[in-house]
Amino acid sequence: MKKTKIYDGKILGLSVYEGKIEGRTVRREMIEHRGASAMLAFDEENKVILVKQHRFPHGYVLEIPAGTLEKKEEPIKCAFRELEEETGYRAKKMTPLITYYPSIGYNTEVIHCFVASGLKKMADLKLDEDEILSVVKIDLKKLLTMIKTGKVQDSKTICAVLTYAAEKKLF
Amino acid sequence: MKKTKIYDGKILGLSVYEGKIEGRTVRREMIEHRGASAMLAFDEENKVILVKQHRFPHGYVLEIPAGTLEKKEEPIKCAFRELEEETGYRAKKMTPLITYYPSIGYNTEVIHCFVASGLKKMADLKLDEDEILSVVKIDLKKLLTMIKTGKVQDSKTICAVLTYAAEKKLF
Repeated sequence: MKKTKIYDGKILGLSVYEGKIEGRTVRREMIEHRGASAMLAFDEENKVILVKQHRFPHGYVLEIPAGTLEKKEEPIKCAFRELEEETGYRAKKMTPLITYYPSIGYNTEVIHCFVASGLKKMADLKLDEDEILSVVKIDLKKLLTMIKTGKVQDSKTICAVLTYAAEKKLF
Repeated sequence: MKKTKIYDGKILGLSVYEGKIEGRTVRREMIEHRGASAMLAFDEENKVILVKQHRFPHGYVLEIPAGTLEKKEEPIKCAFRELEEETGYRAKKMTPLITYYPSIGYNTEVIHCFVASGLKKMADLKLDEDEILSVVKIDLKKLLTMIKTGKVQDSKTICAVLTYAAEKKLF
């Protein structure tokens, strides 16, 4: 496949690939993304720790904490780092939950979801300079209802919470 | 926010937005996508109808049928159209299941998932010229296992199947 680079940015790149697959001429617009880790984390009272984050153009959105992998960073290392940066909590353990492609047809991003356990509150948040977010804690059952009623529409939160609820037979 | 258009392609566009949010200077790389519909459809034997599709750079990937909205097309109309084009089945009814953002931080795409019912096999498939796919039918329980074991990693398939299984209390 012949690759033409269109854009090389901070969080993503864009290339167009042209060539033959199974003898057919194809052209693929492809977003290039390093991948991310997302964490389903429970506090001392067994509430889910979420972040309320400004997501242009949506306004404020409720999501599980997550962040993009640094270059060559292991997903599990990213999970420990981002949880502490975004929520101020340090986890003892990260257990792999589900790994998925948000847009498998045109985006290389893969999201590694973990369950974070053994949490301890550390210092204040260490946010990137253009991150605008606050921490919110919600009961898992309420969060499930928010997913079912369309109040939470973020793929990583939906995939992580429903996978966890399925494992624990919470339906 | 000041918008700079970087790319305007077939299935996606890319713009960079710069400006102030809550008094802070921010810069957002944003994929622009018209949105899509995805369909959880059951055949006469109550098996889930999936498509096995070539997804560069992954090779063949198993997914529920889906497609991008035409300009100004209603999601439900897109769901009827794409189901028939990709699988050869015409549905009597499309029931909204879940709507979600695959990458809420940097992609405008929203995916509308429906449950398709009252299916009838029509003529052969009407594929776009660069679509490479075939139809596969799988039991819902087997599909759930494939999601849990990481054999299916596509967000729309995961979100639709887990939401449906939760509603039907299949865990």
